[in-house]
Amino acid sequence: MRVDHLRRIGALRRKLTRAGLPGLLVTHLPDVRYLCGFSGSSAALAITRRSVRMFTDGRYTTQATEEVQSPRIDVEIATTAAATAAAQWLAAQPGVGAAGFDPNHTSVAELTRLKEGLPARLRKSFFTPLPAPLVETLRLIKDDEELVIMRQAALMGCKLFDHILPIIRPGLKEVEVAAELEYKARLMGAEGMSFETIVASGSRSAMPHGNASTQPLPRQGFVTLDFGIIHKGYCSDMTRTVHLGTPTARERNAYYAVFEAQEAGVAAVSSGVSSGDVDEAARSVLRREGLAEAFSHSTGHGVGLEIHEAPRIGAKQKARLQAGMVVTIEPGVYLPGEFGVRIEDMVTVTRTGAEILTPATKALIELY
Amino acid sequence: MRVDHLRRIGALRRKLTRAGLPGLLVTHLPDVRYLCGFSGSSAALAITRRSVRMFTDGRYTTQATEEVQSPRIDVEIATTAAATAAAQWLAAQPGVGAAGFDPNHTSVAELTRLKEGLPARLRKSFFTPLPAPLVETLRLIKDDEELVIMRQAALMGCKLFDHILPIIRPGLKEVEVAAELEYKARLMGAEGMSFETIVASGSRSAMPHGNASTQPLPRQGFVTLDFGIIHKGYCSDMTRTVHLGTPTARERNAYYAVFEAQEAGVAAVSSGVSSGDVDEAARSVLRREGLAEAFSHSTGHGVGLEIHEAPRIGAKQKARLQAGMVVTIEPGVYLPGEFGVRIEDMVTVTRTGAEILTPATKALIELY
Repeated sequence: MRVDHLRRIGALRRKLTRAGLPGLLVTHLPDVRYLCGFSGSSAALAITRRSVRMFTDGRYTTQATEEVQSPRIDVEIATTAAATAAAQWLAAQPGVGAAGFDPNHTSVAELTRLKEGLPARLRKSFFTPLPAPLVETLRLIKDDEELVIMRQAALMGCKLFDHILPIIRPGLKEVEVAAELEYKARLMGAEGMSFETIVASGSRSAMPHGNASTQPLPRQGFVTLDFGIIHKGYCSDMTRTVHLGTPTARERNAYYAVFEAQEAGVAAVSSGVSSGDVDEAARSVLRREGLAEAFSHSTGHGVGLEIHEAPRIGAKQKARLQAGMVVTIEPGVYLPGEFGVRIEDMVTVTRTGAEILTPATKALIELY
Repeated sequence: MRVDHLRRIGALRRKLTRAGLPGLLVTHLPDVRYLCGFSGSSAALAITRRSVRMFTDGRYTTQATEEVQSPRIDVEIATTAAATAAAQWLAAQPGVGAAGFDPNHTSVAELTRLKEGLPARLRKSFFTPLPAPLVETLRLIKDDEELVIMRQAALMGCKLFDHILPIIRPGLKEVEVAAELEYKARLMGAEGMSFETIVASGSRSAMPHGNASTQPLPRQGFVTLDFGIIHKGYCSDMTRTVHLGTPTARERNAYYAVFEAQEAGVAAVSSGVSSGDVDEAARSVLRREGLAEAFSHSTGHGVGLEIHEAPRIGAKQKARLQAGMVVTIEPGVYLPGEFGVRIEDMVTVTRTGAEILTPATKALIELY
C-alpha cells in the first residue's frame, strides 16, 4: 500500500491555517518520517501553505531520493544542520512572517541556535511554540496504511512468542532468550526491536522493566517477556508472562487477577471512553484482589512510529479515546522479592470496542 | 571494578562552584547513569553542595536500590514526573536559590513545566541554563573504570567481525548478516546494539547510513559493516568494508585511499591536537586522490555512554583532543550508483598518540 504523504500534509496544513500560522518547522524525526517518508537520522521539514521542503545532510543523498517519493516534496542536502537550514529557508519565503515549532521536541539550546541563524529583525518574533502538538495529534489516529502495517507488526510479535515458547527452559539465560527472540525477529524481516527486550524471570519478574540479564531461568517461577519489533518504521509491543514448573496458589491467584484486569481494560476500550476509565477498569480488578499497591504503573500508552506516544492510559486521564488510536493495555502486579506478572495486548480503538492486534493466548502457560 | 560515583559527583561539584551555582538538575539519562549508576528510562538527579538525590518512578523501585549503591546518594520514588519532583526538591533546599539545567537536553516545553511546578516567587529566576555542558564535559575524559569497559566493548565488536566473516557469502540477505551479528552479540553478553546495524552491499554501500535491507549480497561488490554493541552501558563502534569476489582496479584504488586516509587520521590523533587537524589529516589524503567530494561526512565523533557524544572530529573544529577521550576515526568515500567504502576504528587519545581499541585487520579482505 502506497502511503499518501500529501494527504497527511494537507491535513496538517488545515491545522496550521486554523492556528493562524503561515509556516511550520518539523524536527522530530518520527514526525518527519510520517509526513514525507524519510527515515534517516538527520532531517528537518519546512512547511508553508505552498511548499514542503525536506532538509538532510550529505550522508543521505541517495536515501532521501529513494524514500521521499512525492514530487511535491523538495529535498535539499544542507551544508549546515538540517534544522538550521530549514529555519532559514522558512524565514526567506515570501509572506511567511512566522512559523510554529514543537516545544516538546525542541531543546532550549536548539531554539536559541535556530533564532541566531535568522536575520536580526526576525529573531524575536519568527518562531512561535505550537500551543498543542499538531503532527502528534494527526499521528494519534492511524490511517488505513498505518493500520495495515501495525497489524503485521503485532502479528510478527505473536509469531515470535510462539517461536520462543518451546525454547524457554530452566538454566537458559535470560539474555539467551532475548537473543533468540531478536534473531528470529530479524529473520522474519523486522528492522529491529522497538525497545530493549525484557526477559525477567523468578524474583526479577518483580521489576516491571527488568531487561534481560545473564541470570539463568529458574526451575520454578514466572518469566515475563515484554518485547516489540519495528516493521516499516512502526513498533509492536506485547507482554506475556509464562511459568516454569507448577505455580503456587499465590502465583496462580496473582496471574489470574492480572489476566482479569487486563481483559477488563480491553473490554472498556471504545471510541468516546476516557483513558482514565480504561485505567480504572483494569485497576479496580486489582484493587478488589488487594493488589492495588502492587500495580505501580499506568495501564497503557499509544504506539505507532514511536514505542511510547499519545495517548497515555493512566489514572484520571480525561482525554477520550478515538477510533483509529492504537494503544497497549498492560496491567501488572509486582511483589518485590517474590515475583511479578504482566500481560499486555496492543489494540486498535474502534467505534464499538477494541480490535486486538496481538491474539496470542493469555491463558497461564506452564512449561516444564 | 567498582565505579566511584562520588568521585565523579565531587568533580561535578567543583565545576558547579566555579559556575557559582548552588544546585544542578540533571535529566539527561546518560548523565544520570554516569553520576549514580541508575540505568532506568525515567530518572532525574538533583545535586546541591550537600546532597544528591535521584528521582525515579514506581516501576524502578527494585532496580534503583540495586543500581544506586552509594549510601550518599538518596533515592526517591516520585509520584509525579521525575524531573518535576527533582526540581521541586531542589527549590525546597535551604540556601539553594538557583539551579543550573542543561539547555541541550531540556525541551522548551519541559522547562515551562518545571518552572510551573515551582513556587511563584521562584519561577522567573530559579533555573539558569548552563553556559557550557558540565556533565558532558566530565564525560569527555573517560576514567579508568570507563576505559576498562570500553576496551572490552570494542574487543567484543572485533570478535563479532571475526565471527561474521566466514558467514558472509553471495545471496545471503543483508538483514541475515545483521541478525547473525546481533544474535552473536547477545550470546557474548552484549546488552544490545549501540545503533541500528549497517550492512550495505553492492551499490547500497554508497549510502553512508544504509541500514541492513532484505537485498541479497551480490557475487561481486563491497559489503560495508558498521555496528556496535552496548556493554555495561558503554557503546562500541567500528566499520569494516570487505569485498565479495575480486575488486576492480577502481574499487581497489578507492579502498586503499580510504585505508590510507583512515590511518593518517589515527596517526594524527594525540593529546593537544585540534579535532580539525585530525579531520584534515584524513581528508587531505582523499583530496589528493580526487575523492574529496566523495567523503561527505566528518571524520569521527566521541563515543561513551552514548554512541555519538563530544568531541566531534570535523573540518575546522578548533577544540583540542585530550588524553582519555575516546573517539572514532571513520573516513569513507561514496560513489552513488557505484559503491562505497568506509573504515572505522575506535581509539583512546593518549598523551603521545592513540590507542586503537578495535584491532581487527583493515587489509582488503576478498571473500569468495
